[in-house]
Amino acid sequence: MSALVTLNNGLKMPLVGLGCWKIPNKVCAEQVYEAIKLGYRLFDGATDYGNEVEVGQGIRRAIDEKIVTRADLFIVSKLWNSFHHPEHVKINVKRNLKDLGLDYLDLYYIHFPIAFKYVPIEEKYPPGFYSGVKEEEQGIIGTENVSLADTYHAMEALVDEGLIKSIGISNYNGGLVQDVLNYCKIKPVALQIEHHPYLTQPHLTEFCKLHQIQVVAYSSFGPQSYVELKSDVALETVPLFEHPTVKKIAVAHGSNITTSQVLLRWATQQGVAIIPKSSKKERLVANLKIDEALTLTDDELKQMNDLNKNLRFNDPWDWMNMKFPIFA
Amino acid sequence: MSALVTLNNGLKMPLVGLGCWKIPNKVCAEQVYEAIKLGYRLFDGATDYGNEVEVGQGIRRAIDEKIVTRADLFIVSKLWNSFHHPEHVKINVKRNLKDLGLDYLDLYYIHFPIAFKYVPIEEKYPPGFYSGVKEEEQGIIGTENVSLADTYHAMEALVDEGLIKSIGISNYNGGLVQDVLNYCKIKPVALQIEHHPYLTQPHLTEFCKLHQIQVVAYSSFGPQSYVELKSDVALETVPLFEHPTVKKIAVAHGSNITTSQVLLRWATQQGVAIIPKSSKKERLVANLKIDEALTLTDDELKQMNDLNKNLRFNDPWDWMNMKFPIFA
Repeated sequence: MSALVTLNNGLKMPLVGLGCWKIPNKVCAEQVYEAIKLGYRLFDGATDYGNEVEVGQGIRRAIDEKIVTRADLFIVSKLWNSFHHPEHVKINVKRNLKDLGLDYLDLYYIHFPIAFKYVPIEEKYPPGFYSGVKEEEQGIIGTENVSLADTYHAMEALVDEGLIKSIGISNYNGGLVQDVLNYCKIKPVALQIEHHPYLTQPHLTEFCKLHQIQVVAYSSFGPQSYVELKSDVALETVPLFEHPTVKKIAVAHGSNITTSQVLLRWATQQGVAIIPKSSKKERLVANLKIDEALTLTDDELKQMNDLNKNLRFNDPWDWMNMKFPIFA
Repeated sequence: MSALVTLNNGLKMPLVGLGCWKIPNKVCAEQVYEAIKLGYRLFDGATDYGNEVEVGQGIRRAIDEKIVTRADLFIVSKLWNSFHHPEHVKINVKRNLKDLGLDYLDLYYIHFPIAFKYVPIEEKYPPGFYSGVKEEEQGIIGTENVSLADTYHAMEALVDEGLIKSIGISNYNGGLVQDVLNYCKIKPVALQIEHHPYLTQPHLTEFCKLHQIQVVAYSSFGPQSYVELKSDVALETVPLFEHPTVKKIAVAHGSNITTSQVLLRWATQQGVAIIPKSSKKERLVANLKIDEALTLTDDELKQMNDLNKNLRFNDPWDWMNMKFPIFA
């Protein structure tokens, strides 16, 4: 099991979890089940990942076999963009819970600060980048006239109803996070953002620390996830696994230490939670025990922070016809 | 007079105005009066600039002398951070109007997307970076728990009451602008942002065009304004007036063309409004007639856009003890 952090609502969250983005449906139930056996307790899923039924099957099997109880686990999902209207927030979470076979989530994020036009579940689920036939034909995503504050207040209602234990926000920039703090009744416990040595976000992470919001990193390996998606920027960038600075630091910590471990430890040592994915048992174990494997020196942390070039791989602006300037 | 742009509410706004930031109180009335005589019609003021009484005196004199009527002018002010609460928005604008000697503003901006703790006018006006004795002693600015949406809706009420004709937003990042579009009943007509070849903000400006929000540039000369304020970054940066690319382009347009004209024309030619300040009559005239003075080639525009390095001089994070990550 990984170290736990205490969130601002008193709940304890593992600092290392398994990210469920892009785990293929066919192997997902098995991987979740095996991860639980290896000691994973946090599973970071989302409506949009399209594999919550399988995540739920893996969890159910582990509970049925008495490897864990529900209370041992920290299950995360995310409200999709199409369900931002207060009338639709509960529709989304109810579906997440049904797919997962659970009666509450430990943490529920607003996935993106972008309100797509509502798509009824019967029409398409998960709706992805689809907002109805007409717009789809034009290749344009329609939007819903709902403020992020109204969506957030609907998330607060889910806490009051006991459907979720904590609220998170994801892909929010600093101005948006600050606004949340001014309008929330229930503080967000976590901000999930793209975070790696090419995008260290020092102001945003410092601000979150000041306000007791746990930063959770996605894409800890930088371009890696986006090479598979054939992103031009990702393809043109030196992979962090092969960056000379990261390699040098890995070597300094012994022959059994990999660059991926250096990248993950760089995050956790700075108090950032991580959700790396892997299909390899050995790697899963190594990721989970990252804090025991190595400790970077202050100078090594600094060398890695100095790699920052504000290089972001997951910007909706770069997706087809998505003029949403959430990082502009 | 300068060219006019039609805003999304049908009002016409000059593309060139006089920025009132840092015009000394002693000369302000005279400079505003002289600028009107030279053909200036837009005056970009703010609560925070602390010179609205004098701006008003200049306007009054020009109207009394029948050089212009009130209707000929386009008068702008800005809500200060300390007045974000809906109960305080009207207090601020009433004071702006009283100081200016006017009964309406053509455009009223939310100056920053940051809600400082309220400071009563009797205590300190303009309050600046002050939020009450206790915090001031600690050097920390207190905040008010009010959402940007609530502040915006209070601005809409001012339109309904006829105190302001149009709403603007200033220093909003892309995510915040997008949120405004989702919650507003009355669309903002303008976004005022720092904008120069070192900070071209291509996504944000494109987004504003898509949504008929007029971009208004401040600090068109880049580091210039911040050198006076002894900003380290500004002092370390090549002034845009002296940048080889800008100089080369100026020279190409004839011996009477200055680098400052090239910088301003670069903005207006891309549809961005400008509010340069000058105390020199000759410069004021040149700025006002910028569109007649020169036209840049597409290649020259591109060369200047290529100078972009996302270099921002006016970030609240850099001000003393102001951990507001509005640009993070």
